Amino acid sequence: MSNLELPVLGQDDAVACCSPMVREPLGEEAAADLAKMFKALSDPVRLRLLSLIASHEGGEACVCDLTGPFDVSQPTISHHLKVLREAGLVGSERRGTWVYYWVLPAALAKLSALLQAPDAIAAVPAGGAR
Amino acid sequence: MSNLELPVLGQDDAVACCSPMVREPLGEEAAADLAKMFKALSDPVRLRLLSLIASHEGGEACVCDLTGPFDVSQPTISHHLKVLREAGLVGSERRGTWVYYWVLPAALAKLSALLQAPDAIAAVPAGGAR
Repeated sequence: MSNLELPVLGQDDAVACCSPMVREPLGEEAAADLAKMFKALSDPVRLRLLSLIASHEGGEACVCDLTGPFDVSQPTISHHLKVLREAGLVGSERRGTWVYYWVLPAALAKLSALLQAPDAIAAVPAGGAR
Repeated sequence: MSNLELPVLGQDDAVACCSPMVREPLGEEAAADLAKMFKALSDPVRLRLLSLIASHEGGEACVCDLTGPFDVSQPTISHHLKVLREAGLVGSERRGTWVYYWVLPAALAKLSALLQAPDAIAAVPAGGAR
């Protein structure tokens, strides 16, 4: 798929994305959508939670694995997990007693591709940045 | 350089970074540092400003190029540019009447590498994600 065929950024389908911002300016709608995802990443506890989930063995983490490392209350952790989920960065499922979380790779890939630096763009052929 | 040798995230030197968060959890200091950069990206106008600068011909943009596309006042644009600069995402220099802005590629690369998705990690050898 060439970059000319990429759909408008900011669509619900996070997979169908993203041309690096060094290649073309963002439109209003795409910027609004992406800003929400970056807002979810703008808190240190949320960033650490996301990295704990992302790097957890098997690619998913029980909420019971996620409270120990933090000096904040369980309800605060739950709130941060909700923000990550609502931003489309993690998925979750209840299994028995616990809720399990995993990162949504397409969402990370979307943001990562958007932020590709000019030298990375020069090194990667169009459409090859997944 | 292997990933075992990577310095602690969150150091001033943005080039010396970043192991993807799917590979290892972020430390507190690194998360605090990165959260500030993501906070700068969490506003739609700032995201559009950054993408306008990044995609501008020659890799830099005069502030006079950056006010036209927005429905906000010049002081608001200046404030957003200051936030981007203080977050280490853009550099700037006054030349005569105008201030010129350019993106700092190492900062973008740092965030882009951090957010690499699991499938991208699998496809790229360690240390080859620049």
